Amino acid sequence: MIKYILGIDGGGTKTEAVILDIEGKVAGTGTAGGSNTNFISRREAAEAFKQAISGAFEAASVTAKDIGCAGCTFWTVANEVFDELRIPVQPKSFSEHAVAFERAGIEELRGIAIIAGTGSSCGGFSDGGQRFTVGGWGPLLGDEGSAYDIGLRGIKRALWSAEGRLPDTLLVDAVRSYFGIEHAKGAIGKLCDTKINQSLVAGFAMEVSKAAGMGDEAAIQIIEEAGEMLGEMAAFVARQIFTENDGFPVVLAGGVFNMGRLVLDPIRAVILPQFPKAKALIAKMKPGEAVARLAYKKCFGG
Amino acid sequence: MIKYILGIDGGGTKTEAVILDIEGKVAGTGTAGGSNTNFISRREAAEAFKQAISGAFEAASVTAKDIGCAGCTFWTVANEVFDELRIPVQPKSFSEHAVAFERAGIEELRGIAIIAGTGSSCGGFSDGGQRFTVGGWGPLLGDEGSAYDIGLRGIKRALWSAEGRLPDTLLVDAVRSYFGIEHAKGAIGKLCDTKINQSLVAGFAMEVSKAAGMGDEAAIQIIEEAGEMLGEMAAFVARQIFTENDGFPVVLAGGVFNMGRLVLDPIRAVILPQFPKAKALIAKMKPGEAVARLAYKKCFGG
Repeated sequence: MIKYILGIDGGGTKTEAVILDIEGKVAGTGTAGGSNTNFISRREAAEAFKQAISGAFEAASVTAKDIGCAGCTFWTVANEVFDELRIPVQPKSFSEHAVAFERAGIEELRGIAIIAGTGSSCGGFSDGGQRFTVGGWGPLLGDEGSAYDIGLRGIKRALWSAEGRLPDTLLVDAVRSYFGIEHAKGAIGKLCDTKINQSLVAGFAMEVSKAAGMGDEAAIQIIEEAGEMLGEMAAFVARQIFTENDGFPVVLAGGVFNMGRLVLDPIRAVILPQFPKAKALIAKMKPGEAVARLAYKKCFGG
Repeated sequence: MIKYILGIDGGGTKTEAVILDIEGKVAGTGTAGGSNTNFISRREAAEAFKQAISGAFEAASVTAKDIGCAGCTFWTVANEVFDELRIPVQPKSFSEHAVAFERAGIEELRGIAIIAGTGSSCGGFSDGGQRFTVGGWGPLLGDEGSAYDIGLRGIKRALWSAEGRLPDTLLVDAVRSYFGIEHAKGAIGKLCDTKINQSLVAGFAMEVSKAAGMGDEAAIQIIEEAGEMLGEMAAFVARQIFTENDGFPVVLAGGVFNMGRLVLDPIRAVILPQFPKAKALIAKMKPGEAVARLAYKKCFGG
């Protein structure tokens, strides 16, 4: 009887479930909205997990009883959902940094992983099994260099221009069309609630990226600064566990890295002078698939 | 039959009601928690208004029917509460900038008012009746130089030190005792909710001020930067309505200015080179009393 492997990953704005067959081929994928319990309730996260998993079951034409092994992020939520869907296995839990390494195709958990999606964090893993992480503090106290951070800076910059306190920028029109408002200052009304609407703010990062692509100086500066902050975060972590002569991968995982050289060049510019043998690698595999592959290896060996 | 004058002011963390007798002497004062509807619900604001007004009634030994004239900030809330308490007058509404001028004892509405309490904003009033305001955008998009801003920067700075990313500062111990936690990074747990706890963050501004008083470089820098931002906000407003040869008062109103020269010197350093004849004045009168005095003048003439 063929058993399948289920992997499920929860991000700030997207949840992804992937089913692998016993040969390691992708049999089906399902997606849903965000499920990071730093930002939404466990109940909402569980709903997103259920939706993504059900979608993957349907796409792969399998049922709960066919699952022989599973991996997850957000273990508590996964356990609850697995019980409810009667999936007959205990999911194995993986950190977002371990998932990032897998997404970049790196077998050995050694090097630095920078996560910059809706939020941001950085983890480092040494030869000797040392583990050092920073960030992941959420939108109020941290998330430097994340899509949330880039989006918020972009909106603020537009408002200052709209008010005449700073020179004009394409971001003013971008705020108007993004929020569907007549005047950029209307964004204040859209975000005046004391509850941080993280997805709405992070979504504007894409507009900042577009404006930068059109040569807007203000937008370019915001993205370059995000890159510098991410680079400094990674260099700080690297200094804790590596020496300047060590060679190691710096895995870049998350939507922010889709912005390309504008964010990547400043990261390299900060890290390389301190660690000339470090090498940046973009995590390209889908996160749900990476979680499934990690689970596969844990259940059935490399 | 003697009639009394009631004034009520709502701030981010404090509400104050003051009753004046017909000669303009303070007959009684009542206070309550915050009532700024930018941060709390109208229902909570109305409760704070009621509590402050009832306290003032009691202190002055008057009842609702003795009130012959009244002033307020947050007109909608005041109207609702006045109906409920059967206060037989319509309150006159005043802006926080007008209240700031009155608090500084300035009769004529001309000059600049910088508000830096829990939040921040700036208003300017020209000879010709021109009015120009900036800020007041709330904790997510604005509030530069406010107690909220100072508190948040202080907490972030402590966390970076606790993590080893920046040199040590007294703010690390201050965060531990302020939040009652073992390790400074526990502050992340206290503030990880996506709802901005503005009073809790703004309250830490006082700890930043204390650390600065003990010579802590990190704390001093945070407060000086707040002063610079407030100064730049005021200078921007002044450039819209005054010329460099104009003399005008710059009224400073709000708890941030209790920090003294550390915040005041940078404000002067920004404004004076551009407007040598401007003069900073601290608003010392209690805000509730200022609202009552404005109402008095409006009802009975100067």
